[in-house]
Order: sequence, then C-alpha cells, then structure tokens
Amino acid sequence: MDNFTFYSPTLFAFGGGAEQQTAELVRRFGGTKVLLVTGGGSVRRNGAYGAVTASLETGNLPFCELSGIQANPRSGKVYEGIELLRREGCDFLLALGGGSVIDTAKAIGFGAGYDGDFWDFFSGKAKIQSTLPVGTVLTISAAGSEGSDSCVITHEEGNRKWGCPKTDVIRPKFSILNPQFTCSLPAYQTACGAVDMIAHILERYFTTTSDVALTDRLCEALLKTLLSAAPRALAHPEDCAARADLMWAGMLAHNNSCGVGRVQDWGSHQIEHELSAFYDCAHGAGLAVVFPAWMEYACPRDPMRFARLAVEVFGCEMDFAAPENTAREGIARLRRFFQDLGMPVTLQELGAKSEDIPAMVAHRGEKPGGFPFGNFVKAGPREMEAILRLADR
Amino acid sequence: MDNFTFYSPTLFAFGGGAEQQTAELVRRFGGTKVLLVTGGGSVRRNGAYGAVTASLETGNLPFCELSGIQANPRSGKVYEGIELLRREGCDFLLALGGGSVIDTAKAIGFGAGYDGDFWDFFSGKAKIQSTLPVGTVLTISAAGSEGSDSCVITHEEGNRKWGCPKTDVIRPKFSILNPQFTCSLPAYQTACGAVDMIAHILERYFTTTSDVALTDRLCEALLKTLLSAAPRALAHPEDCAARADLMWAGMLAHNNSCGVGRVQDWGSHQIEHELSAFYDCAHGAGLAVVFPAWMEYACPRDPMRFARLAVEVFGCEMDFAAPENTAREGIARLRRFFQDLGMPVTLQELGAKSEDIPAMVAHRGEKPGGFPFGNFVKAGPREMEAILRLADR
Repeated sequence: MDNFTFYSPTLFAFGGGAEQQTAELVRRFGGTKVLLVTGGGSVRRNGAYGAVTASLETGNLPFCELSGIQANPRSGKVYEGIELLRREGCDFLLALGGGSVIDTAKAIGFGAGYDGDFWDFFSGKAKIQSTLPVGTVLTISAAGSEGSDSCVITHEEGNRKWGCPKTDVIRPKFSILNPQFTCSLPAYQTACGAVDMIAHILERYFTTTSDVALTDRLCEALLKTLLSAAPRALAHPEDCAARADLMWAGMLAHNNSCGVGRVQDWGSHQIEHELSAFYDCAHGAGLAVVFPAWMEYACPRDPMRFARLAVEVFGCEMDFAAPENTAREGIARLRRFFQDLGMPVTLQELGAKSEDIPAMVAHRGEKPGGFPFGNFVKAGPREMEAILRLADR
Repeated sequence: MDNFTFYSPTLFAFGGGAEQQTAELVRRFGGTKVLLVTGGGSVRRNGAYGAVTASLETGNLPFCELSGIQANPRSGKVYEGIELLRREGCDFLLALGGGSVIDTAKAIGFGAGYDGDFWDFFSGKAKIQSTLPVGTVLTISAAGSEGSDSCVITHEEGNRKWGCPKTDVIRPKFSILNPQFTCSLPAYQTACGAVDMIAHILERYFTTTSDVALTDRLCEALLKTLLSAAPRALAHPEDCAARADLMWAGMLAHNNSCGVGRVQDWGSHQIEHELSAFYDCAHGAGLAVVFPAWMEYACPRDPMRFARLAVEVFGCEMDFAAPENTAREGIARLRRFFQDLGMPVTLQELGAKSEDIPAMVAHRGEKPGGFPFGNFVKAGPREMEAILRLADR
C-alpha cells in the first residue's frame, strides 16, 4: 500500500424523501442565494424538481436557474453559469441531476471566483485553490461526481473533453441521494450508469502496487453488488433495493474509498473521452466498448490479477494449470455482461468508424501531456491504437 | 437498506512519515495553541512523540501536555484536561496515542466549551452541539476512534463506563495514521486491537435490516482482511503490509462506512463495558470473551446470517441440509481464531468470576435506559445473564 491522503468531507443524505433536507443543508453550508443547475425535463417529470424547489421555497432560499445541461457537458454552459451567478449574486451551487449537471456546477463553482478563463484550470495554466460551495441532488447513478474530487468538461473549441486535476477542494459539501428518483430512468441510461460505475472500480483495480488486498476486496465487494443490482434494476425498474444498491455503490466507486494507497490506471477513460468527443456517445456506452478491449490488451502484464477478478467477481473456476485461461474467461464474462445490459461492445455497435481511429489518436495527442496515459498500461499512440483495434471487431 | 446520513469529514493522512504533516494540519483546521494528550511512555519509545513535537516546534505551534491517560480512560483526566486547556488558552486538541487518548481528547474538546459538568453529555442531561477541534496521531490499531463519531469514558464515581451519544460533531478534523508506529506494540495489545476491530464490524453485521448486501460485502471484505493481517502482524511484528492493513481496516471498521443504512446491535459492547468496569480488563480481551458467547445466544434468531458469515469469511463449506451446523462452525472458528491470537475466550481466562455475573447485570441496570440494549438481540437482564453464562465455561 502506498502513502495516501483521503479526505471526503461530503455529507451524504440517503433515502426516500432525503431531498426535503435541501434548504437546511444549503444553509448549513453557508448558502443564502442558490444557482440551481439542471439538465432537461426529466427532473420535472420524476418529481425531483418540484420537491427540491419546494424545499428551497419553504426554507426562504432565493434561487435562479441554469437549465439545459446535456450529456458530455460543454464549456458554453459553464461560461453562461458563471455570468448568471455573478449577475444574480448567488453564493451556492445546487446541482440537480447527474454527472453532467454536477460537473457543470463544479466548474462554475471554481470558475466564478477566478478572474481569468475557467478553462485555465483544465489546461494547466491555473490551479484550483477554492470554490463556491456545491451541493447535489442526484437523479442518476453513474458518474459518481456526487462524491468525487473530479470534473470533466468538453470545450467546444477543439472539442476537447478534458478533466481538471483531481482536488478535494471541489468535492460537494453535501449530496442528497434518493434512489426513487432513478426508478423512472430509461433502461439505456440505467445500463450506461452501471457500466460507468463498474469502470470506475476497474480503473482502480488494475494496479501495479503490491500489498493492496484490503482495497482489492473493497473493489470486489462493490463490483459484485453492481453485477447483481444492475440486471435487477433493468428487469424491475421500480426495484427500490436494486436502485439503492446502484446509487450507494456508484458513490463509493468514485469517491476513492476503494482506491486509496494504490496506483490507478484510468487509460480506458482517456480513450473513451475521444469516443465521446468524436461521436457524442454516452460515456457508459463508450466505456462498454473500450474497457474489455483494454483488458484484453492489458491481461498479459499481470494475468493473475485478471484471474483473481474472474474468480472473485465473476465466479469463474480457477484454472491452476493455466491461469491465463481463467483471466480471459473473466474478460469474456464482463463483455457478455455489458451485452446483456444492452450495451454496445464494439466500435461498430457504438456507431464509431474504424477509419477514425488514427484521427482519435491524433486528437488525443493535441492535449498537453496527452501521451503517455495510464499506469497499469503506459499507453502511447501505438498502444491507444492497438486497444481501439481490439474493439474493432 | 434504511435511510441514513453519512458524514465523515475527517482528513486521513496515511503512511510512513505522515506525522510530519502534524503542524500543517493543526493550522489548516484552525489551531494556534495545542493541548497534546498522551498516554504512557510508549509514544516516547517508538519515536512518535519526538516526531510530532518536532513538527509542532518547526511549525511554531506552542503546546502544553496532558499525559498519563490509561486504558479504559477515566473522568479524572478529562476534568484535569479541561482545566489545563482553559488555563493555558489552548484552542486545539491533539491526541497522540490510541483509543483511550483520543476519547479523552474528544471529551475535553466538547467539555471545555460547556459551562456544566462534561459528564452531562454522557448521562443525557445535555446534548453535544459543538467541540474544539481534535486531531489525532494514531499509535495503535484498535478502537477506531480516529475516524468515529463516538467516545467512551469511565466515570470514577460509580465506575460507570459509558459512551456519549454518537454525533458527527466529534469526529476528528484529521487523523495521521503511520503504521510503523504500531510495529513495536506488544503482541497482547496487537491481538486486543484486532479483536476490537473485528467486533466493531460484527456489531454492524448482525442486523435485522433487509436488502443490505452491499454493506454485508464491505463488512466481509474488512473481516477477511483482519483475519489475514492479525496473525501476520503477530508472527512478524515489523510486517509493514500487515500493520498497514490493520490500521486502515480498523478505521473503516468504525467510521461506519460499512454500517450505513442498517440497524446495528452493539449488545456485546455493552456487556463488555461491565467486564472492563469490574476487572479493568483490556476492551479487546473482554470482547473476545463476550462476542462468541453473544453469537451462540443470537444464532437461532437468524441462522442463515451466521451461515453466511461462516461461508464468506471463515471459508466453511455450506451445509445446505442443516445451515445451523455451518452457522455454529463459523462461531467456533471465530473463537478458535481469538484463542490463536492469545486472547481469553472464557470469563475464567479473563480473570472474571461467575459469581459476579448478577452484580454486573445489576450495575448495568443502574444506567439510565440501561435495559434493554441491542437490536439483533433485545437484551434485558435475563438475556445479559444468559450470554455471560455462555462465556462461563
């Protein structure tokens, strides 16, 4: 285990009706006027919007609203939000939605107190030192941004889907997690969310650090939960227990409690960012394509780690004579699991084109320090192309 | 899963040399003059005291010291600390030691800002609303107080070993966890610590709440880690990986990350508090006696939960025809594990007397609301006596 700092000072209010605490929590963390950040109409249909605004009104908390945040959230909405927040004199960001809405609120939060362009924090020109407080009311189990120290925005100029450097400063002050809000999600979004959460754990699971049995076991506990809960939620969308498992596991999958003290990979996320940038696909769908391909590429580096995953999580029998067979069987089962969720697992199924692969690799190369990425696999342009070719089936 | 709030705003700095951050962390959380709380001489022998005071001195942080805190910490030292803190004008509590030292610092922290007797918070006369900030430098993996919302003090008057009501207010601001400081611990203390940590998980594991597969798996992940790490640390005291596993698992075992959303029991702890009060035994030693006895008593309530523990944690084969056999085998293996660590598992081995059982039950009855306690087993005087008799072998 490596040395580490773990600091997750987010208050989580979990369960049915938890959103009734919204105003109380905004006040507790210093808010007096709220910029409410939302996506499309789904939060109006599932009751979340009504419940949250009712809490703000009952609590005499004035708010104005930035709506229309889309998947793969764009810089334009961040600029718009910063301007709106300054004009209205808001001192608290409340994100009502999923990862895109939360990441937009986070970017507004640290961008609003900065004189320059908020993108400086993504391009490395400036370092995040402070932020306006951000609270969240989560309506989809997926990105884990409700508990995480990270934020991903796509800049329209150059179509750059980049994350800012991870920092505890931008963890939300509170996150309200009511699994009932997720019961009305379309199957496709539920499935994309499950893939995203599984990927967040696997990015941490594939490590070069030794003596990590404790975090390995925590990762496996979360993976087994997700493998069990996702099909239940798809079969019975109103299954509250399955929705609750997905929601809490999704937070734990990305607040780094299962990733402390170990080198992590994150290569698959980097590759997926290019798929999203090129095709505007759902992040989870892109990951369903990339991750099994990455695993096939990575497996020879440490077949026993893949065999462990296969045995402990996918219930494979260990082939002691040829552990690499067990390892491969685990990867095959993960891909089959994604397929059973209705996810694409090849570039073609995603609507991506083989002939775009060189352009995606080149686009990645335009990011400062874009290569190499990843740690379990150190990926340069050649490795990135090889992994994408393994998804080109 | 039940509704819950989870709020663990403690910063954890983990690893070799982490104590060099002491002064920086004290300042970050608002401290300008420190009351350093310590136990006996071990922190001077293992280098922790020197390293921590060096950090304070380098950081120009004045401090004064309250030393001599003992196991099963007493109210006298809390009163002394409150007086010292007020006289010296300290604004930050730094606990350097284990659970007893940390609990003493916590009690001073919330007692110092209160006009009345700090014991009012334990007897229910007052409710903890605020505290002076507390930081910790942990030197034994056991109590989990470095991340917990609880605090247990023994009042000399009436020998009352009571916990204050749990509240996030008293979680430490930061905790520094350097596993190297635990390498010089005597085997007996290492073993007691392991039992305490295992007990903290089992108190949460035995629940009446349904749909708790996620937290069940987290509990099992921690238990398996402890069952593997404790014998390794005893066999090779300098095994850093084992010490690190114990230290981080011990924190996770009691910051409630594996216990959210589920009814917990805590009956064994209540019974053990009487053993400690009567015999001043180590908390872990008392738990090694009480917990297997409690489990034997509790098993018929939900044999499948005990069978699950046996299979998932102790590697027992499931007896599908008679799961209660598997359940009992799991309990037997836990008791054997405690014995292998060198722990007592009967009242006699602890130095306790059968004839004191009625007096212990009566003493418990003197606590306001003392009966019933526990949730998986609702324990009145009769149940408490029956459980103690099962340890009287």
